[in-house]
Amino acid sequence: MMAGRIILLVRCLSQQRNKVLAPDTGRDMMCFAVSAAFSWSPSPEIGNLPRTGRRLGMKCRLSKAFTERRRPAECLLDHTSQSPQNQDKIMIDLDRRTTTFLALLAPFFAGVAAAQTSADKMSDMERDMSKVPWRGNEQIAMLIYPGMTVMDLIGPHCMFGSLMGAKIDLVAKTLEPVTSDAGVTIIPSATFQTCPLDLTVLFTPGGTDGTLAAAADPDTLAFMADRGARSKYVTSVCSGSLILGAAGLLKGYRASSHWSCRDALAGFGAIPTDARVVRDRNRITGAGVTSGLDFGLSMVAELRGQIYAECTQLVSEYDPDPPFNAGSMKTAPADVKAVMIKLLEGFTQKAEALAAASRI
Amino acid sequence: MMAGRIILLVRCLSQQRNKVLAPDTGRDMMCFAVSAAFSWSPSPEIGNLPRTGRRLGMKCRLSKAFTERRRPAECLLDHTSQSPQNQDKIMIDLDRRTTTFLALLAPFFAGVAAAQTSADKMSDMERDMSKVPWRGNEQIAMLIYPGMTVMDLIGPHCMFGSLMGAKIDLVAKTLEPVTSDAGVTIIPSATFQTCPLDLTVLFTPGGTDGTLAAAADPDTLAFMADRGARSKYVTSVCSGSLILGAAGLLKGYRASSHWSCRDALAGFGAIPTDARVVRDRNRITGAGVTSGLDFGLSMVAELRGQIYAECTQLVSEYDPDPPFNAGSMKTAPADVKAVMIKLLEGFTQKAEALAAASRI
Repeated sequence: MMAGRIILLVRCLSQQRNKVLAPDTGRDMMCFAVSAAFSWSPSPEIGNLPRTGRRLGMKCRLSKAFTERRRPAECLLDHTSQSPQNQDKIMIDLDRRTTTFLALLAPFFAGVAAAQTSADKMSDMERDMSKVPWRGNEQIAMLIYPGMTVMDLIGPHCMFGSLMGAKIDLVAKTLEPVTSDAGVTIIPSATFQTCPLDLTVLFTPGGTDGTLAAAADPDTLAFMADRGARSKYVTSVCSGSLILGAAGLLKGYRASSHWSCRDALAGFGAIPTDARVVRDRNRITGAGVTSGLDFGLSMVAELRGQIYAECTQLVSEYDPDPPFNAGSMKTAPADVKAVMIKLLEGFTQKAEALAAASRI
Repeated sequence: MMAGRIILLVRCLSQQRNKVLAPDTGRDMMCFAVSAAFSWSPSPEIGNLPRTGRRLGMKCRLSKAFTERRRPAECLLDHTSQSPQNQDKIMIDLDRRTTTFLALLAPFFAGVAAAQTSADKMSDMERDMSKVPWRGNEQIAMLIYPGMTVMDLIGPHCMFGSLMGAKIDLVAKTLEPVTSDAGVTIIPSATFQTCPLDLTVLFTPGGTDGTLAAAADPDTLAFMADRGARSKYVTSVCSGSLILGAAGLLKGYRASSHWSCRDALAGFGAIPTDARVVRDRNRITGAGVTSGLDFGLSMVAELRGQIYAECTQLVSEYDPDPPFNAGSMKTAPADVKAVMIKLLEGFTQKAEALAAASRI
């Protein structure tokens, strides 16, 4: 019965889209995603979430209390509105789409509510889809700077990009193009001056020398400290946690980082924690580079709920299958570890020196 | 004994670096990476590589024949030389670094060769590190276009970026900034006219409407067909395989794509294949979005060998731990699949129409 209602709704939406809307992307389509309310594990290691997440997913099916955690969605902002190209077209598409969906979702919620009282026993059909914070207005600011590792930025952005109604800014000192450590050049969408004051998520990617330079730059640290004090979540991936630490945002908090500089966080008064994604209160930090996908998906679940995050995971086909098993210091072959530890030794030492010299 | 030689070498390199070189990034440091020669599995599904790779890794330890597969490295190119910023500095750093390492590596190879004859029984120390194609000159061209999914591009770029000596171009119709479907704006490094003619790797990312537009654009298809005919490897991630197909590059080849448009590849004469990474002769295609990391790491192993790829995996800390298990049509909950299939239906239909209308 529930499945029938979903198909009915989606066919209705699909027909409406064909009439009213421009063709849209997989990301845009995420505005349809339906989500169960979700709560973090009491464990600070979100790396434990596969088990915890499923356990909480089951709780969601059993307890209406979880559904009270969702926030109201006041207004719609376009997460691409700052992009230099296609800005107007994309904004118009998203606004038209959202207006249409809002009108269409009311009967869906009624139908889903009725389905909840049915005898349908398919477990993944029992999740309360009528409590969906599918429309949001998060303000997300992602710091970018010369020498950053662009994968640290794009992994989380890939997941944040599914948040219909969220506004994502790529924030730099100026609007001059920013080149990553591997030579990818990105145009910022906002500056330290034009970035919104009150943020849902403040994020910084990592890198090596570029990150150490950013972590020693007074303007960058002043921006991070100011927005960090106002942001609901203060986050990073890879050695980006060095920038959070240098801005005084990790004192007394557990935090992760790239394996080559995680211990240096102690110099900023943080508690270095070896996990893929670490949460301590509103500080959420990822390990090296590719952990940004696990971090980003965890953030989508925190902001919109588990089912929304599952839709994001399916559209990004995040079903990883590394061809080798050398991705962590726990699994890499001894010869690979020996070489890489020594080869990153210079960066490790500089990160520790920076942290040790801080007055935090 | 072997471990001692590695530490000795690296301490020597480290001291030399401190004297001669500017601080460098984890990626730059990959030029140190030592690699065993590597051969693909006879299976077209690189998704099977975790088992196959290890088996071949063992073969490498048993058979010198594998080491004959490596290519000589004629000259050194800087993979960031096309980036608008820091170009000179980065090129100089990389060139100085490489010159230094070349001089230092000769005694290392002799030492390692001697170690091979020792009684050292640690399996991961038995790999022949003296046959390392650690210096390369690959020419990699990555197509970028408006509306692409930037994660499709950056996942592979994250891995390609570790290839010391390789040159990576981000190629577009013009040098005008290109905005992705989620609003990330990237500046191209080359145009269809300035892109090198003879490539090691031709790559295209996917997307939705932007990809369909690129797959219907005569200039883009002419560029892909021309470079595809000259490239050692013709590759894509996600719906990028639609562009390869539209350019006539997949006729008679097994290929993967995003789950929402994989079947459409049949319209281009391809054989849709459901796997994370699919290889058929020199065509290597990934599944949706995040498969670019598995694709990229497999390509690094193909180009530089398994140990080089393992070093790349460790520096990018690619030890994935998704918080949910919804990343494929095989594992996602039924309600999530039902909604996402319907919500991508419009794109699926347009992709099938495009392929069916092709005269390939």
